[in-house]
Formats: sequence, C-alpha cells, structure tokens
Amino acid sequence: MIAGYSVVGKPLPRVDGKVKVTGEGKFAADMMLANMLHGKILRSPHPHARIVKIDTSKAEALPGVKAVITGKEIGPIRFAFVDTPRYPADQYPLAIEKVRYVGDEVAAVAAVDEITAAEALERIEVEYEPIPAVFDPEEALKDGAPKVHDEIVPTTTCAWEDWGVNKPARPFKAVNNICTTVSMAYGDIDKGFAGSDYVREDRFVLPATAHAAIEPHVVAASYDSNAGKLDVWISHMSLAVKQYWLSKTLGIPVSKVRIHTCFTGGSFGGKIELFSHDFLAAYLSRKTGRPVKIVTSRHEVFTNCRLSHRFIIDLKTGVKKDGTIVAQHVKLINDPGAYRGSSPVVMLLAHTFRIPLYRIPNWKHEGVGAYTNKPVCMPKRGHGSPQMSFAAEQQLDMIAEHLGIDPAELRLKNVRKTGEVLPNGDRLDSCGLTTGIERAVKATKWKEKRGRGRSNYRGIGMGLAAMFSGSMYYPFSSSAIVKLNLDGTATLYSGQSEFGQGCSTVLSQIAAEELGLTLDDIILVAGDTELCPPDIGGFLSAGVYCSGEAVRRAAADAKQQLLVVASEMLEENVDNLRVSSGRISVMRAPEIEVSYADVVRHSIQSHNGDPVVGKGHVKPVPEVEFYPSLSKGGARFTNAYGFTVAVAEVNVNPDTGKVNVLKVTIADDCGQPINPKNVHGQLLSQAIMGVGDALFEEVVTKEGRVMNPSFDDYKIASVYETPEFVHVPTDSFEPKGPFGGKEVGECARAAVIAAIANAVADAIGARIYSLPLTPEKVLEALESGGN
Amino acid sequence: MIAGYSVVGKPLPRVDGKVKVTGEGKFAADMMLANMLHGKILRSPHPHARIVKIDTSKAEALPGVKAVITGKEIGPIRFAFVDTPRYPADQYPLAIEKVRYVGDEVAAVAAVDEITAAEALERIEVEYEPIPAVFDPEEALKDGAPKVHDEIVPTTTCAWEDWGVNKPARPFKAVNNICTTVSMAYGDIDKGFAGSDYVREDRFVLPATAHAAIEPHVVAASYDSNAGKLDVWISHMSLAVKQYWLSKTLGIPVSKVRIHTCFTGGSFGGKIELFSHDFLAAYLSRKTGRPVKIVTSRHEVFTNCRLSHRFIIDLKTGVKKDGTIVAQHVKLINDPGAYRGSSPVVMLLAHTFRIPLYRIPNWKHEGVGAYTNKPVCMPKRGHGSPQMSFAAEQQLDMIAEHLGIDPAELRLKNVRKTGEVLPNGDRLDSCGLTTGIERAVKATKWKEKRGRGRSNYRGIGMGLAAMFSGSMYYPFSSSAIVKLNLDGTATLYSGQSEFGQGCSTVLSQIAAEELGLTLDDIILVAGDTELCPPDIGGFLSAGVYCSGEAVRRAAADAKQQLLVVASEMLEENVDNLRVSSGRISVMRAPEIEVSYADVVRHSIQSHNGDPVVGKGHVKPVPEVEFYPSLSKGGARFTNAYGFTVAVAEVNVNPDTGKVNVLKVTIADDCGQPINPKNVHGQLLSQAIMGVGDALFEEVVTKEGRVMNPSFDDYKIASVYETPEFVHVPTDSFEPKGPFGGKEVGECARAAVIAAIANAVADAIGARIYSLPLTPEKVLEALESGGN
Repeated sequence: MIAGYSVVGKPLPRVDGKVKVTGEGKFAADMMLANMLHGKILRSPHPHARIVKIDTSKAEALPGVKAVITGKEIGPIRFAFVDTPRYPADQYPLAIEKVRYVGDEVAAVAAVDEITAAEALERIEVEYEPIPAVFDPEEALKDGAPKVHDEIVPTTTCAWEDWGVNKPARPFKAVNNICTTVSMAYGDIDKGFAGSDYVREDRFVLPATAHAAIEPHVVAASYDSNAGKLDVWISHMSLAVKQYWLSKTLGIPVSKVRIHTCFTGGSFGGKIELFSHDFLAAYLSRKTGRPVKIVTSRHEVFTNCRLSHRFIIDLKTGVKKDGTIVAQHVKLINDPGAYRGSSPVVMLLAHTFRIPLYRIPNWKHEGVGAYTNKPVCMPKRGHGSPQMSFAAEQQLDMIAEHLGIDPAELRLKNVRKTGEVLPNGDRLDSCGLTTGIERAVKATKWKEKRGRGRSNYRGIGMGLAAMFSGSMYYPFSSSAIVKLNLDGTATLYSGQSEFGQGCSTVLSQIAAEELGLTLDDIILVAGDTELCPPDIGGFLSAGVYCSGEAVRRAAADAKQQLLVVASEMLEENVDNLRVSSGRISVMRAPEIEVSYADVVRHSIQSHNGDPVVGKGHVKPVPEVEFYPSLSKGGARFTNAYGFTVAVAEVNVNPDTGKVNVLKVTIADDCGQPINPKNVHGQLLSQAIMGVGDALFEEVVTKEGRVMNPSFDDYKIASVYETPEFVHVPTDSFEPKGPFGGKEVGECARAAVIAAIANAVADAIGARIYSLPLTPEKVLEALESGGN
Repeated sequence: MIAGYSVVGKPLPRVDGKVKVTGEGKFAADMMLANMLHGKILRSPHPHARIVKIDTSKAEALPGVKAVITGKEIGPIRFAFVDTPRYPADQYPLAIEKVRYVGDEVAAVAAVDEITAAEALERIEVEYEPIPAVFDPEEALKDGAPKVHDEIVPTTTCAWEDWGVNKPARPFKAVNNICTTVSMAYGDIDKGFAGSDYVREDRFVLPATAHAAIEPHVVAASYDSNAGKLDVWISHMSLAVKQYWLSKTLGIPVSKVRIHTCFTGGSFGGKIELFSHDFLAAYLSRKTGRPVKIVTSRHEVFTNCRLSHRFIIDLKTGVKKDGTIVAQHVKLINDPGAYRGSSPVVMLLAHTFRIPLYRIPNWKHEGVGAYTNKPVCMPKRGHGSPQMSFAAEQQLDMIAEHLGIDPAELRLKNVRKTGEVLPNGDRLDSCGLTTGIERAVKATKWKEKRGRGRSNYRGIGMGLAAMFSGSMYYPFSSSAIVKLNLDGTATLYSGQSEFGQGCSTVLSQIAAEELGLTLDDIILVAGDTELCPPDIGGFLSAGVYCSGEAVRRAAADAKQQLLVVASEMLEENVDNLRVSSGRISVMRAPEIEVSYADVVRHSIQSHNGDPVVGKGHVKPVPEVEFYPSLSKGGARFTNAYGFTVAVAEVNVNPDTGKVNVLKVTIADDCGQPINPKNVHGQLLSQAIMGVGDALFEEVVTKEGRVMNPSFDDYKIASVYETPEFVHVPTDSFEPKGPFGGKEVGECARAAVIAAIANAVADAIGARIYSLPLTPEKVLEALESGGN
C-alpha cells in the first residue's frame, strides 16, 4: 500500500452495494415502460438448413400479437463484433435464406405479454430443407466441406471506415470456410530454433465455455417516432459499442440512440457486442410504436449469447540449456462457430497477452479460423489469454522438467522487467513479474512442495498471465467531467458503466482522492450516453487506467480551478496552498483557509458566474494505427499491462480421477490497488472462475446442438469448489495510471487455469493437453504414464 | 430581422411542442413512483386564531394513513422568498402557535390514496381561539392594531449569509405590523419640485390578482434514507431556488437534493419560491420512507399559492411647461398579507423597472409594507412593474393633458436612449423606446384617433414598461456545457427549465446558430440539478440574456475546439476556415472540408482522446454587491433591459360601463428575437393577461377569506376578450446578448395594463384610480365627470 492517500487504497464498501442489496438497483429486466410489449425469438432447430417458407399468418392472428417479423422484412442488415474492410460483418438479425447453427434467429414477435409471445412463436410455421453441416474446424478447412457462408457482400458501410479508415469493404469469400487468418512474426524463427538446445512441440485443445453471468441478456427499447429517437436499457459492457451498432443497423444517428443507465448483472466479456435480440427489440419498437422488452432465457444465453473461443494450439518452443527461451512458433486453429464472432481479435490477442510475459527474441504466430455449424464465440474474460496460458505455461513446465530446472526459476530467468519495450513499441512502465514469482514462491513454500506430488497425489503448479490496461481499440478514448456543487461536493460524469466490476466505487474514489474529498462527497452520473462524455466502456480492462485516469484528470482540472480562485481569496500564491478535506489552506498558516463551498460561490460571484467544471480525457497510446504491424508482432496497445503469478495447490483422487483445488495464491501486479476490497474480489472471482474452467466447464455440442444449456448440466465452480485464497500484493505502482493503478479484472483467470493444470501434472506425473481436466482425462493420464 | 443567421430569428416550432400535444410530456402530477403516498394539508378556517389543541389520533387510526404531522413535530423551521439579516424568514411549513390567514397550513397527512388523505384531514380535530384580525394595511399600521407577528427569531442560518454576506441575522420585530421599509433617492427632490412648473399628486390602488397558471402547484418527493438523498419532481421556475430551500429546511446538503426534469405548466412568477407543500411532501417522504405526492387543488392555488402584490401608491410628479419631468416622489404602502412574501423585493423593483424608462433627475422612493391577515403576495410577471405602470403612466397622461401635449410626444421627450447610464450604474446597451413610440404611433394612426373618445366612447391609450434581462440576484449565474457527439450533433446541458416560456427551443436555437447546426442537431438536457451546470433559472427574465449567452459561449468554446482540430486536418490556419451546416471548410477552396463528425473522431483519435466539450458562463454584472446603494437608486442589475410600448384601443358601453379592448399594438424591444414565433407568443400572452388585469382580475377577500377561489368566480381574459393584436418590432439589437437577444417575457404586461387604463380615460374623459376597471367604476367615473 502506498502511503499518503486518503481515499485511494482503502477497502471502502461499494457505492452501489446498498441499492443492490435492497433490490432498488435497476437492471434492464426491471424496466417497466408504459404500454410495453414483450418480444420473443423463434430459433432454428437445425445446424444447417435452407429456409423454404415461413408462414406467420397464424401467429399474427393470435390476439395480443402486435408484430411478427422475419428476415425477409428486415433484409440483409449485417452486424458483427468485427467489421473491417478485410472482414465485413457476417451476422443477420434474422436469418434470410438459411440457418447456420442450432439457435440461429429465424423470426421474432412482439406481444402484450410473454405467454402470448411464446404462443405466437409456436404458431409460426417454418419449412426447412436441412443441408450437410460441419462441426469440426479441421474438417471444415478441407476441400469439399459444407460451406457455412457464401460470399459475404458488405451491405452497410464498414464500421472501421466510419471510424476513420477509408478503405472500401470488399466482398468476403470464405474459401474452405476460412473466416480469419493471422500471421505475425519478429526476429528469425528458423535461426532461433536452429540455435536452441532443446525444442519441444505440443498440441493443446481448448473447448468453448460459457460466461455464466447471473443476469441473462436483456434489452428494453423504446422508439419515439416524433423525436426519431431510440431509448434503450440494456445488459452491456460498453455504452459506446451498443450505441454504435444500434445506430448503424437501424439507421438512426448515434446521438439519437440513448443508452440509459442501468446495472448489468455480470458480463465477463459476454455482453460486449450487439446481439440480434438487441436489434430486434428496437426494430419491433419502431414497428409497433410501443416499447419492447426481450429477456433471454438461460437456454438462449447458453446457445445464442456467445461462448469462449475454441482453439487447437500447436506450440513449438526452443530453449537454451540454461532455460533461456530462444524461439517460439504458435499455430492456431480457431473455431468461432457459424459466424466469425471475435475470431480476428482473439487470434491477435492470444499472443498479445503472452508477449509482455517473456523475452522471446524469435517468434512467429500464425492462425486460421474456420466456420463451423456451431454456436458463436466471443470474448470471455481474458479473450485468448486463458487458452494460450493453458498451452504455453504447461509447455514451459515440461521444458523445465526436461532441463531439470525448477519451473519458477525458469520463469524468473525469462520474465520481462519494468522498463522493457515490447516488439510492438509498448513499454512496460511497471512490471511486477519477478517480485510476483519470488513472493508467490515464498508465500506458498513452493520449493518444499514442488515435485512431491507423485507420492501423495498432491501437486503445486504455477501459471503466469498478462493483460493490457485499455488499448487504442476503436476511436473511443475515456473522458470525464467533474462539476463542483455549491455545497463543496462534486458530481462526476463518466461514460463507464457498472456491470459488477466496481467501477462506480473506484472512479468515485479516484475523483475523491484527487479533489481531497470523501467518497460520500462524490455524486456519480455514469453509464448514460446522453449524460456522459464518451468512454470506451468496460472492456479491454480500461476501467482504471483509462476511465480512471480521465476521471483523475477531470478532477485535477477542477482542483486547479479551485486553487486559482482560492489563491485570490486568500491572497496567496497557488504554490503555497494545500488541499485537504474539501478545504484549501495556506501552507505556512493552515488556519487561514476556505472551504470548497466558499470557493465555488466566490467563483460564481466574482468570476462572472464561472462555475467550477473540470474536464479530463485519456487514450493509452497516441498513434492512429489500426492495423497490426506484422513485422513488430502487432500494433501498439498501451504502456500498462497487468500481471498475475498464480500458484495452485491440488490433490487428486487416483481412484476417481477427481481433482480438488485446495488453494490458490495470487501475486498480482495491478499497480496501486485503488480499492483493495475490489481487487480482492476481482482476484478471488478469477480464482473461482479458473477452477471452473480448469475442472468442469465445457459447452458440449452434439451435431451442433448444445447438450448442456442450463446450470443443471453446465457446472460452474460453487462455494464447495472454492479454494483457500491467498492474495500476495507486489507493491507495484503504475506511473501513468491514476494514483498508480492499472488492470485487475481480467488477467488472473488465465494464470489460475495454467497453475491448476501444472499442479495436476505435478500431482499425477502426467500431462493433460485439453480442458477441462475431467476425472476421465485424469484417470487416462494416470494410466498412460502417471504416478 | 438581422440578416445572416440560419437558425436564430426563424419562427421555428417549439422543440417541446410534440410531446406536449401528444400528452407524452411529463409534468410533476404525472409522476407515479412505486409505493407512492398522497399528501394533503389541513388549513386554517380562521384569519387569525390561536391553536389551543390538535388531536390527530382519529386521523392516525384511519387505515391507509401513513403519517399525520403538525407544526409541533416539525418545529420552528422557517423559510421565505426573502431571508436576509434584515428580514429573516417568517413562514413555517405548519403553523405552531397560531394561524395568520384563512388557509394557513395546520397539519398534513400522507395516505395510500387521495380519498383516504382527504378523509384523514376531516378527522383531525383542531381547537382554535379566534383573535382579532386586521385586513387593511393602513389600519394595520396604526398603534393598537392586532399584531400579526410577534418577534421573529431567526432559527436557521440566514440564506444571504450562506450566499456570502456574513452579517448575523437579528430577531425581527414588526412594530405596528411593519414588515418592510424602503427608502431610496437620488438628486434633490425638494429642489426638483421647487423648480417644476406643474406638480401633480395622485393616489392609485392595486388589488391582489392570481397567476392563474393552468397547472396547479404539484410536488412529488422521494427520500432515500440509504443515500441520504431527496429526489423531487416539482412545479418550478428555478431549479436553484427550490433546491436551495429544500436543502436548507430539511438539512440535506444541496448536492443531495435532486430536482428532476419535468415540465411546469405555467408559472408567471407564481412557482418561484418554496411552498409549505413542497417541504411537507419531502418531510413526509423522509418520515414514511415512501414517495409522497401533493397536488394542490385550484382552491388552494388561489388561497395559498400566492397572489400579486397589493399596493397603495401615492405618486407626486413635477414637470416643466414643455413636459420635461423634473422630479418624482413615490410613496408605497404594500400589503403582502400574513407573511412578508416578496415585499422587500417588490418595493425595490417597483422603481427598478421605471428608472430605465424616463430621465428623472430628482427622485425619491419610499415605501412601507404592513402585515395583514390575508393571503400572501409574491412575484407575478413584472413583479411591481404593472402596479407602478398603472399609476405612473396614467399620471403622465394627466400631466400631458394639463400641459396640452400629446401623451406620446411627452413620452418621446423624456424617454431614455441607447447608451444612457442609470443612476445605479446600469448602462442601456440597447434601448428601443424612441423607435418604439414612433412606430407604435404610426402603426396605430395614433394622432388621428387620440382624443376623439368623448364623442363615440372609443379611446386609445399608451403605456410604457421596462424589465431587466436577468440580474445579479443570488450567487447564481448561468452556465452551460456543450458536448459534441460522434455523429456531429451536439448535446446541450443547461440548468434552465421549461415552464412554457420556450427556453428549450430558444436555447437550442442559440446553440445551433453558434455551432452552424440545425435545431434537430441539438439534443437538450435541461432542468435537472444533477445533470446540468448551475443556472439562475427562469425568473428575473434571465432566459435569453443570461442562460442564452452562457449557451452561446459554451457552443463557441466547442466550435473553437473544432476549428483547431480542423485546422490541423485541413492544414490551414483557423482564421482561414469557415463553419457552416456542421462542416468546416477552407474559405478560399470551400470544396476542401471536413464534417464535425470527422473532426470529433479525429480529435478523439489524435488528441489523446480529447472529446469536444465546451463550457460557457455569464453573469450580467460583475460586482459582488447585495444591498442596494440607496444614494444611487439601488444596486446594479444588468446592462440589458427589455422595453415595451403598448397602445390599446377600447370602446366603452356608456350604459353598462363595460369595456372592450379592441386592439393592442405592441412595439417591443427584446433585441434580436431569437424565435419570432416565441416572441409573438410571449407578447400576445401579455396582451391577453393585461386585458384580464385591467378589466376583471382581483382576488376578493372578505374578512380575510377569498371569495372567488375558482375560475367560475375569478375571471381571466378568454378568447372572447382577446383583442386584435399587432406586433411592431423595433429592430433592436442587444450587443451583449446572444445574437442580439434580451428579455421578452415579462415587460409587456405592465405596458398593456397602463395603455388600457389610458385608453379608457381617453374614451370616457375620466380617470379610474384603481384596478380592475370594472363596469361599476366606469359608470361611477362617467357620472362623476366623464363624457
């Protein structure tokens, strides 16, 4: 903990805690608008089929049904997470000629209540002509495989063109179902391997998992034809993304799409993008002239609201005898499902989050994404990092074992340090990896425990992960406004949104600290596109480093204005004034002071009515550069990365193959924790999520159909599986973050998964190359060469 | 009309028109909050009585009643329109020891519905001991008259002390019921009269009238004990005033009292201050833990929601033979009723609005206010100006008649001109009086019509009035924020509120004009204390000159930021760029251009995420000076006054005494009309209101009881009495107003009343010295010396 702060660094309770505990907090599902209709969506029962005919007449005839729509009516509007000249958007709100996965949207209804809407769905008659489907990405890449997409002709202006890249979008043809390719390198990979003492190659397989947020996806939309304005209450992570895509798909100017403040009940990446149901609610509202709400079912969340990315990773690493990593070649096969989803992004990020960890002088990263007739994949907490960590951190352990070096020592030898510049130009202004490994080793008594597993089926393992703190993605920066009130309190306007990550509290703390006020003195207006200045929102882990720093700068601007007026009132130079507890005093004579309230009044009275309003903005790196510089291992992102060193301790039942995660220790570098309680919560939640990922989670499909679309069948880690959790701070400080803060919410999950995998290997003396580490796989590994 | 504007000066339809016409617009009475209770107030049936005992037990026992409160519980909390060290607040939310007028608040209830609340009121048993009352102000001033108030000990910090005047409030003793005194002068009054060729003295009597806004007074209050925060939806004219007084009386910090945006259905000054019911709704919400709404009845609006000020005016004026005014002595007796109301302010303003009209070198203004046991008086459109105009403009006509000068000529000789500096230091940056008189004379064929009345009972008369454009009252200035959106539109944040005056449209026009956008491109966020920067609000006629100029400055700030970024994009100096239709182009080559949308994106991309947010603030005069400088005829207010020259044409039925106002012509100086349609509406509404004031309106009391508390018994001018209306612009331009604009909403009413009075005198050849000009008075005047 850094000394000298009053509000920052304190484990203050959440500012949104009370309204959530009392049930007063409004989520999108709580919205009850006058005359509101309820929307429901008819979905494809087939993984791949032509739509021969849709007859909606019986549904339309049902009393209480106000609208029934199909893809024919809506037309070829397209949207996607990625929409670039290279990769034009490939999703439709409603399928037009064919359906591509089980659950694909086919028709939608708006009715006076949910039961009527559900009954209407049953009355829609769709005639399908099933066609051959493909479910395996390697099969999909073969000549002659069923084609999931025909040529995709961009029908809307390319999003990235809007954002300033003036390259025309071209029709996209998915030859052999290839939806994405990526190829980046630096150094000389061949020379690297040639100069290695030991080269190792392994294949790892990662399944799709669910985000499992407690709130399902919800949207309430109200279109006002008089004003030409769309008001929306929606489960989201970024106001900017939802606003942009609603504007684009509906043809309503951005400023006429208002996303209103409401809480989002967990996202983990799963609520970033536009969903069909978001568009459909808005479309149905415009069509019917009434507000329309769509609440997805848990089944829909599992099948249609995206999954984490499936990967096959071929990983080849070359090292010197002493453990120095010399070269690495990553080959990815990504299966994003029936639409591209975030495939181009996750392929890029899969390496982005590894590069800051280890110095690897020669490196190549190649990947291909293949459409299949399966549910679609999108970011999930770490977006590519957990998959790559599972592979690369296990392989490191295997290399260490081969070389006879302690895996912690091997990591210490190769990890990056503060001040290093990455191949893309990003500089690590702070990096707590070395400290983190050292402290984690000490805290866990690593050296005593490591390598003893084979005698008692207990194991200990380590995993490392990194995560950027915001990036230059999209033209969104973070900005904030701070208005001083007549009673000396401050109102903070931020475009960040609270989806459980704690931004309301943390941003308020930052404003309070900078202004010398208490948390109670900050009134927060956030999460509303109309009321707040633009902000990138809650993804890219931009909360503290970007939004937080924008808030700090806005508060600093306001404080400077206060100081100038106080200087006049106290007849003392600004440099001789001190700010504390909402008062400004003369340093040499602290009894001479004025309150903020006095200063604000004086400013209004004597400065021609000037109220005190401060502005702040921030963008992590200044360059306007959208496309990855392939020769530098990608474009710049930020100068601040968060780091996690996780150590997991497990035991394994050799008879049942069941793994228990006993303890997770995390030495993290999130810079100065703005709120240690929130940091603890973020890390603990990732430890628990990591246990689930490592041991249970997989969305299982059979012929494209999700077999476990409920919490009965899809197990997440519960209180029974929650391990003992130890948090070891690294006392880091990010010089450009607000009060030294940076990323904390996304990094650790990847490290925990890897640590558990390595701990299981330590316990059983054998490797498992795919997730989850089911009892079956453990028993198989034990049989094939384990303890 | 000034050429060269695109949006300003155009008769654009109101931006709030559609939601009002469709019924979508929310007024306070439309607020339906979950679990909301309904409040009602028990009022005194006596004009003056001691409260012996209140038994609330039967009311409390009624099912559905959630709270019953009396003055004993609330205690001696006091509030008022005026609360200074000299004049401490004298109103209680609920009477404690005695009631002072019929309607005084005695108890309040909150119940699950209005019927239950009404029934609960009937079950409250109050034992009164009636005591002698006084109803006539001159009687009240006599020794031995019943005392309406005992010593008033200030119980809360004086409001003005909060606002920076650090004088302690003293107990106030109303000797002989004197609640206010005023005495101001400049020049030498005795010398002035001594040097006059003709001196005339008259007494005029002005009754109380009602504001007659169509919406009754409403408040919905919701106190959140978790957050310590009060949310309020309320009929109001100024967010700042309601917020301040709710904060002060309830002991909640200003920033924790949020007034939410809702429309107010007309105010005319009648909804400025805090009312008991406002406080009581908030108090009852805090007490019950549920939202509480109070909707006043029309009866309550008439008896308890304030009236215009009653005046007895003794006016003495001395002139030279040629009509030059040399001296004027004004003596006022004001009867504000049972509480001081705005007495100190109206006594000050009664002359403030006359000084800018005529050059009068020697002048004295004295006044006394006397408590009586009658309903309380407050500002009404013009606040003192209509009363004084009725007196002074009639007396000018009588002087003109005596001197044999055309009254229009007499006025032309004496009216002030652009550039003149008033005794208090205010400079008339624009003054259209001369032009106005000349054009009105021409437009009405004045010279042909004037003085012919006695033959056909038709008459024509003129009246002049002035009104400031905002003032330095309170520490409130006007401020605004303009945020540019990614689609090139702009969001405007203003603390002004829409109460029918048209500010939403006009402020949006100003922002659009400054930014080179259309009205549709402006998104307005206004009328909410939490979302908007501080603004004085809708009184003091500050809308255009203060709030409007703040908006213009905020837009100009944003435009300058756009120009700087565009200059970089176009590689051209800012001075060589032109702004038009949301685009910035190079002057010498207009085809080289960028859109605002491009510029905003570029700013965010290339300026470290800088969004375009502009700020503006304004205060009409810079001085910090609260108390009138008595030797200068008062403190400074502003450099911009609005002026009206009204000409009325009437006929009189000599048999019935009934007056018909046939035509009203107004030559007004509101500077450049921002929206001519709105200016027309403001002036027409004042012509109609003036007809009502002149002919019908008087709240009649008998033994303190209002005899006509309904629209059945209190007649306002209807469509049948609406005269032909002609608006003659004076093509004025206020150099410091936004695009030349200034005051338009308050001035004309006073001029119209005076013009009608003078026209009636012209028609019947006799004077009536009191309002309204009822048939009885007309017949009496005719009999006593008329035609």
